[in-house]
Amino acid sequence: MNPTLSSFVGGDRGDWTVRRAVAVSGDALAAVAAVDVVAGAPDDGRARWVLRGVVSHDRYVTRAEKTLLAARSPPLGRPEATYAALIPIKKSDAWWAMTQDERRAVLEERSRHIAIGGEYLPAIARRLHHGRDLGEPFDFITWFEYRPEDEPAFDEFVARLRRSDEWRFVEREIDIRLVRTT
Amino acid sequence: MNPTLSSFVGGDRGDWTVRRAVAVSGDALAAVAAVDVVAGAPDDGRARWVLRGVVSHDRYVTRAEKTLLAARSPPLGRPEATYAALIPIKKSDAWWAMTQDERRAVLEERSRHIAIGGEYLPAIARRLHHGRDLGEPFDFITWFEYRPEDEPAFDEFVARLRRSDEWRFVEREIDIRLVRTT
Repeated sequence: MNPTLSSFVGGDRGDWTVRRAVAVSGDALAAVAAVDVVAGAPDDGRARWVLRGVVSHDRYVTRAEKTLLAARSPPLGRPEATYAALIPIKKSDAWWAMTQDERRAVLEERSRHIAIGGEYLPAIARRLHHGRDLGEPFDFITWFEYRPEDEPAFDEFVARLRRSDEWRFVEREIDIRLVRTT
Repeated sequence: MNPTLSSFVGGDRGDWTVRRAVAVSGDALAAVAAVDVVAGAPDDGRARWVLRGVVSHDRYVTRAEKTLLAARSPPLGRPEATYAALIPIKKSDAWWAMTQDERRAVLEERSRHIAIGGEYLPAIARRLHHGRDLGEPFDFITWFEYRPEDEPAFDEFVARLRRSDEWRFVEREIDIRLVRTT
């Protein structure tokens, strides 16, 4: 129930091997061979970069939406879900200057972010981390896990979101695809 | 526009002298003579305690409410506003388990938190800091500034909130009243 800090540690070795990394918008991150997902804030001098974020309370879903999603959402760590995507995002000042009702209207009523996400359940497991209030370079870090054969569906999912009104407020986005190393 | 970290440093000396401190709910804080309000995260070994929070984007107000409040809200630092209140609050797990629509319904439709606050403008200046995602002991730290003659109105304001449905979710609250030292 309490907010949980996670760190995504990019470096030479790690539990997840990078298959490819694309800077979808804005500056790229330094290229790394692997990523570790670590609880807390490790002091790892060997890392090329560390992205931090907090798993925290829900910001946009209504109770009805949450009930629907929760019933269909798989857990992280499924043995067969050997593929992952790490997608850090920074939104624009214009996004954060909006009030809650305005942000919700863009996110769901105009962009159907929550509904579109629901279409890819139970194939794709997802965990959202918040970095903005920590002073991190990315506002959000989303971690996804799925089976290799579900990657075309995952590609379709992120392509639909990137065409949405909400994505006009995304000023930096990196899409890192991984495969479990161990 | 970016989130701004503030620290409230309790100790022997500071810009704001403590007039009184009351643990309204839950455990008290250690008694201090004064509080400093400092940008960033100072490493102050002489402090009895340091509370940290981030001024961040709006979470509950609608655009209509924000427009109304912004037109009437005074800035911090008015020379005549020599009294202040520092009110750190921790809400319960039950609060954070609610979805946004449920929290908003308790906060405003049932408790009229935003509307009640508006009644005390422009007398009372306010700045809200978020601590929960930082792993701080308090979810919120609110800082208020007002003229000494407005303290009865301020007392009425906090008493009304403490009688509201929303306050059933408050499990720890400290009310520290201060006067500008310098």
